[in-house]
Amino acid sequence: MKKAGILGGGQLGRMLLQSAANYPVETFVMENDPFCPAAHLCKHFIVGDIRNYDDVLNFGKDLDVLTIEIESVNLEALEELERLGVKVYPRPEALRIIKNKILQKQFYKAQGIPTSDFIITSGLRDLEAHQSFLPAVHKLALGGYDGKGVELLRKKEDISKGFDELAVLEKMVDIKKEIAVIIAVGENCETVIYPPVDMVFDQRLNLLNYQLSPADLPDKVFWKAEAIALKVVKDLKSPGIFAVELFADLDDNVWVNETAPRVHNSGHHTIEANYSSQFDMLWRIMMQYPLGNTDHILPAAIVNLIGEKGHSGPAVYEGLETVLEMDNVFVHIYGKENTRPGRKMGHITILSNERQELLHKANQIRHTIRVISKD
Amino acid sequence: MKKAGILGGGQLGRMLLQSAANYPVETFVMENDPFCPAAHLCKHFIVGDIRNYDDVLNFGKDLDVLTIEIESVNLEALEELERLGVKVYPRPEALRIIKNKILQKQFYKAQGIPTSDFIITSGLRDLEAHQSFLPAVHKLALGGYDGKGVELLRKKEDISKGFDELAVLEKMVDIKKEIAVIIAVGENCETVIYPPVDMVFDQRLNLLNYQLSPADLPDKVFWKAEAIALKVVKDLKSPGIFAVELFADLDDNVWVNETAPRVHNSGHHTIEANYSSQFDMLWRIMMQYPLGNTDHILPAAIVNLIGEKGHSGPAVYEGLETVLEMDNVFVHIYGKENTRPGRKMGHITILSNERQELLHKANQIRHTIRVISKD
Repeated sequence: MKKAGILGGGQLGRMLLQSAANYPVETFVMENDPFCPAAHLCKHFIVGDIRNYDDVLNFGKDLDVLTIEIESVNLEALEELERLGVKVYPRPEALRIIKNKILQKQFYKAQGIPTSDFIITSGLRDLEAHQSFLPAVHKLALGGYDGKGVELLRKKEDISKGFDELAVLEKMVDIKKEIAVIIAVGENCETVIYPPVDMVFDQRLNLLNYQLSPADLPDKVFWKAEAIALKVVKDLKSPGIFAVELFADLDDNVWVNETAPRVHNSGHHTIEANYSSQFDMLWRIMMQYPLGNTDHILPAAIVNLIGEKGHSGPAVYEGLETVLEMDNVFVHIYGKENTRPGRKMGHITILSNERQELLHKANQIRHTIRVISKD
Repeated sequence: MKKAGILGGGQLGRMLLQSAANYPVETFVMENDPFCPAAHLCKHFIVGDIRNYDDVLNFGKDLDVLTIEIESVNLEALEELERLGVKVYPRPEALRIIKNKILQKQFYKAQGIPTSDFIITSGLRDLEAHQSFLPAVHKLALGGYDGKGVELLRKKEDISKGFDELAVLEKMVDIKKEIAVIIAVGENCETVIYPPVDMVFDQRLNLLNYQLSPADLPDKVFWKAEAIALKVVKDLKSPGIFAVELFADLDDNVWVNETAPRVHNSGHHTIEANYSSQFDMLWRIMMQYPLGNTDHILPAAIVNLIGEKGHSGPAVYEGLETVLEMDNVFVHIYGKENTRPGRKMGHITILSNERQELLHKANQIRHTIRVISKD
């Protein structure tokens, strides 16, 4: 049986492991927290620091194949593992580009991939010097995740919210729509594309509000989004799952925002809505099986369950039973013991042929369920 | 978080645990074999004998709710656990009726539920005395499973194949069709019914060949099957999932064959084909959530993967890659290290609106994939 490892044990690992149980594979997970969402669903759980060279090397050296569920892993250890003959998907070379937001922007520019203008900043003093570049988005070069490490700087008064370390200042685009395209890349660089999805964001938390699949886009935008996402992924030259987040502006131009080299929140609906889910697909890639079918079975929406503001502690899912009474709705709770404001605690998928029903139920769910703490 | 236990760690436990990861529940499994399919997917795995009173009692006494994935468990311990306030689904009283094939037949008869005539036999000598009752099916009272403990006795020369211990001889029905109906019963005895499925059997192994859902039945037969299955389940007076297997004869009469008080092979397609799968549904029942939606998303077929005759040892799935190339097909391998002739090693689900496509692909899959041993 093939031995496959996952660095990180959050909800992405958890959902990967739910899928892994369909295949003959021996699963390994490494993560610091032995109570993380994925800990008890793998065959072998190893407590260790995914940012530490020795921990990652020791974890990976006897595996056949290794993947990540978060970008902040030790890259040098992954490079060494690849030299030792372990398959690492995404390849460390692609991960090196993506995990640093500056290198990522420079990569898009170098490859001629449309992306907004940007300036590299090493501290607040640099920001002061580029007031005329605002409104812009300030992103930490390293370590941002789930809306953290990102600040919207609309006007010069916002500059103090910026980062006083290495970061990238990205010119704000007049966004009509945010789109995500998930692409799977096989062992021999063959690709399959999932239908693009519309992402609707909560501007305050910079977290996904709900998402619709397939996206409702003019053909021109649809094709541009697919073509650009495909170019990003082809240029990264690595097997794996890639989520390319894009903007469509008011003139129907399409820009790359950023890329994740892994299974991604924007693909969670594929568990129920598509023949091969993004999680199933990554196992197919890691097991060197044929790629799966990305067609949707039914259109879908998803709503994220986010820890309520002002609530920290043991999680309670208020309104869950009301949601479970809905006919065409699938609940995914990630099994995190404690909630925190803004923490991703689960998601809910809705399937329907009727776009109006998807929107209506997504809104209904958002106003029905809250993740609060017991205390 | 609720503590929920499963007695038995086979593929049914495995698929239950894949579903459990969608809900906030702490899972426990007990089983003798620490390498069983469910062992690494639960939060707590306990090595123990599910037929042993003390083992079952100790396993269950601190749980909120307990279920089974096989009937051959210690009933007295379950009764004691119920007295101690642990919810046991199915209730021990219902399990007592079902796990003994004689009591099960007597129950149908007592409740006026149509079932074939039967004779209780305590050994081969009894069979000799009832030659005129043949053709009939001889079933061991206790311990039969997956086609074991069942013999077809067509003529008096077959009598030597019968069981020389307590068993039941069931008059053979002129079967036009075998049908299974899965019914979920909630905490307050509310019920929901999955669409009936057609089961097509391999007469030689007495194992499921393929199955289609929903069943293609005349309305009259469809309604009879649903009504009879519902009566069986209502009369058992227990929350849980129940699979009622029925025969339709050449005159469109419907007879109960037998009932399983648990998730069942005839419901595996519900993972992809129905809004709430039988596994999801059992968690809803155990968690005291509202029952799910049994409607199908698309019609489905399933093919079981059975260990090839003449092959025992480490399992190899010959032809798996060819099946994985098919567009609307879902593979479930149960992760059993060794194959044996007739052993259930996995199943494959096909979704399609076209019945012809379901049949065609089911046959194609049956002739493509083989579970053999390495040696």
